[in-house]
Amino acid sequence: MKKNYLLTPGPTPVPAEVLLSMAHPIIHHRTPEYEEIFAQVKKGLISIFQTQQEVLVLSSSGTGAMEAAVINLLSAGDTALVINGGKFGKRWADICQAYQVNTEMITVEWGQAVDPQTVADALKANPHIKAVFTTHSETSTGVLHDIKTIAGIVAAYPQTVLVVDAITALGATAVPMDDWGLDVVVTGSQKALMMPPGLACIALSEKAWKLTETSQLPKYYLNLKKEKKTQAKNQTAYTPAISLVIALRESLAMIEREGLENVHRRHQLLAEATRAAVQALGLELLAPESPSPALTAVKSPAGIEVSALRGILSKKYGVTIAGGQDHLKGKIFRIAHLGYMGTFDTIIAISALEMALKELGHPLELGTGVKAAQEILTDL
Amino acid sequence: MKKNYLLTPGPTPVPAEVLLSMAHPIIHHRTPEYEEIFAQVKKGLISIFQTQQEVLVLSSSGTGAMEAAVINLLSAGDTALVINGGKFGKRWADICQAYQVNTEMITVEWGQAVDPQTVADALKANPHIKAVFTTHSETSTGVLHDIKTIAGIVAAYPQTVLVVDAITALGATAVPMDDWGLDVVVTGSQKALMMPPGLACIALSEKAWKLTETSQLPKYYLNLKKEKKTQAKNQTAYTPAISLVIALRESLAMIEREGLENVHRRHQLLAEATRAAVQALGLELLAPESPSPALTAVKSPAGIEVSALRGILSKKYGVTIAGGQDHLKGKIFRIAHLGYMGTFDTIIAISALEMALKELGHPLELGTGVKAAQEILTDL
Repeated sequence: MKKNYLLTPGPTPVPAEVLLSMAHPIIHHRTPEYEEIFAQVKKGLISIFQTQQEVLVLSSSGTGAMEAAVINLLSAGDTALVINGGKFGKRWADICQAYQVNTEMITVEWGQAVDPQTVADALKANPHIKAVFTTHSETSTGVLHDIKTIAGIVAAYPQTVLVVDAITALGATAVPMDDWGLDVVVTGSQKALMMPPGLACIALSEKAWKLTETSQLPKYYLNLKKEKKTQAKNQTAYTPAISLVIALRESLAMIEREGLENVHRRHQLLAEATRAAVQALGLELLAPESPSPALTAVKSPAGIEVSALRGILSKKYGVTIAGGQDHLKGKIFRIAHLGYMGTFDTIIAISALEMALKELGHPLELGTGVKAAQEILTDL
Repeated sequence: MKKNYLLTPGPTPVPAEVLLSMAHPIIHHRTPEYEEIFAQVKKGLISIFQTQQEVLVLSSSGTGAMEAAVINLLSAGDTALVINGGKFGKRWADICQAYQVNTEMITVEWGQAVDPQTVADALKANPHIKAVFTTHSETSTGVLHDIKTIAGIVAAYPQTVLVVDAITALGATAVPMDDWGLDVVVTGSQKALMMPPGLACIALSEKAWKLTETSQLPKYYLNLKKEKKTQAKNQTAYTPAISLVIALRESLAMIEREGLENVHRRHQLLAEATRAAVQALGLELLAPESPSPALTAVKSPAGIEVSALRGILSKKYGVTIAGGQDHLKGKIFRIAHLGYMGTFDTIIAISALEMALKELGHPLELGTGVKAAQEILTDL
């Protein structure tokens, strides 16, 4: 017997109640029964997005919703400002470039948060910037960017919208779309929503919806105006991933029962415990100054191969954590505390990490990290 | 207690084994375990597509894969020939128009199959046609188009590809991609594959892959060249709908156990039985000359409101069948024999239809249709 523990920042573990809800006999989507389910899903999403806007559900992964944001707001030749501080920040630029949207780039060192002042400077220098694309919680680095401050800056530009990839952030931390004045918020199902991948969600402010009236980029499957019209009637333009929508109703109900603030606090404490633990083990955080509540990126100590570490964790202990991506591959590992995770998921992560590091010859006293985590998690 | 029977041409019923396979604990997709599952899925798909080409899996509904076909093969200003004999044939034109692809249209009366000679004439008249977009089994009318003959015509044009929407056809009837020389075949999960919606599949011939080298239309999430490269390594460019992929492995294994020819024969006999039954009841088929093995479209008899008929079927008998779409709304109803359906699904459909029609005052002798179906289904 080997029990498996998925401690990655997406996909994340799915509660058995949610998994089993997908076994509900398939129903037709053009029925009142489905519309009732979809209405409940929308209600749940609206409360997590903290918005009065319609939250649209797309049958795609989060990247599909990111692309939807670009192609529904902009036209070829428009200029976008992209905050690129990791793999997913860069993805905004890749999408823009695929559609001949000019991109100005604020390049941020991986592990650092963007300085909002650089956004202010860029907007001041180029009044043609139509959209600012950014990441809230950057999954590749474990950084949480200061979206609230950035939103305040962008708000001063009536012709510019702020588009936020909140795929890893939403549900792990507050993303009060309307309060902060975010124009587009995107998420995916396989993160804090405690779902399998396959659905993405997107909400637009009035300012963003106005841009959809002038956008010339071609689109069909990801046409948000069409979806808005259809989803207002609890339908979707094309056949939705029915089982995943049914599952989403279940996971949203779980979030509602826990209470959104409690969900955020749980993520916050798990994150603090994880950071305290790895630091107690003498390890260095990649993003000590602006850490995400969704995941913790840790620099691999000298002499420890990340692949060997992840191999022991996975093969011997059944614990799956993430490695680094792109140029951080082999240099960091990433431990998630995201979605359906609680005190003992973090204890498992840290204790397995200790045992694997020790086996690889890294000097540490077993239990040191666990103790540091426990001291924080008694408050959860 | 009311038992429910989903007899629509997509979504179709999903076997309990497949539903329950989605309750498998979520696994990470960047792992050997997932790659092994994906490899099995690819193997199963290749045998149903009857091709030596890679069959790509997309996390989207079938429409996403249709769009992928257009945007990966063509450029703005290209000319496409669209065979429009129903709602889904028309969708090809809608997608082309969204991308400024010029479309020539062969409009076929709903319920009729396209005359392949009109395709030959159109290609002869306009040597600039780069792609012919067609539907194999048109879900809105229950027509099966003669794709084999059309493929033979298109094959004579080395600069022109044939793109086939086989969303409802694949698995219900033979779609021997390589033998017939089809250049692109598209399907969706929620039809003969006995799956929930949320996945789409697409395969391209060498001739079609060559077009992807020159295509200028913008794309990102639905970039097939990128997917081909990634899926060759049993991965996907973006996070896949993992639970649905696991379920697809299960349903493909069921198809393999039954044997593809037996699956096709089952669809054929269920279709024949359904047609014989409704004709025995004095009802008229919409597509008597070229009926699809996936569904049967029936003209509603004079004086019978389709909405009333479907209402009784659904509310009193728990039987969901489809109505007509677009201008056929209120004029026809559609009974599926598609995917996870056998003898007694057809018996249920016909017997419920008889009881509902009788209740609505339509003159018939109960059991007449059932008898006609039984006589054919003894051979299944």
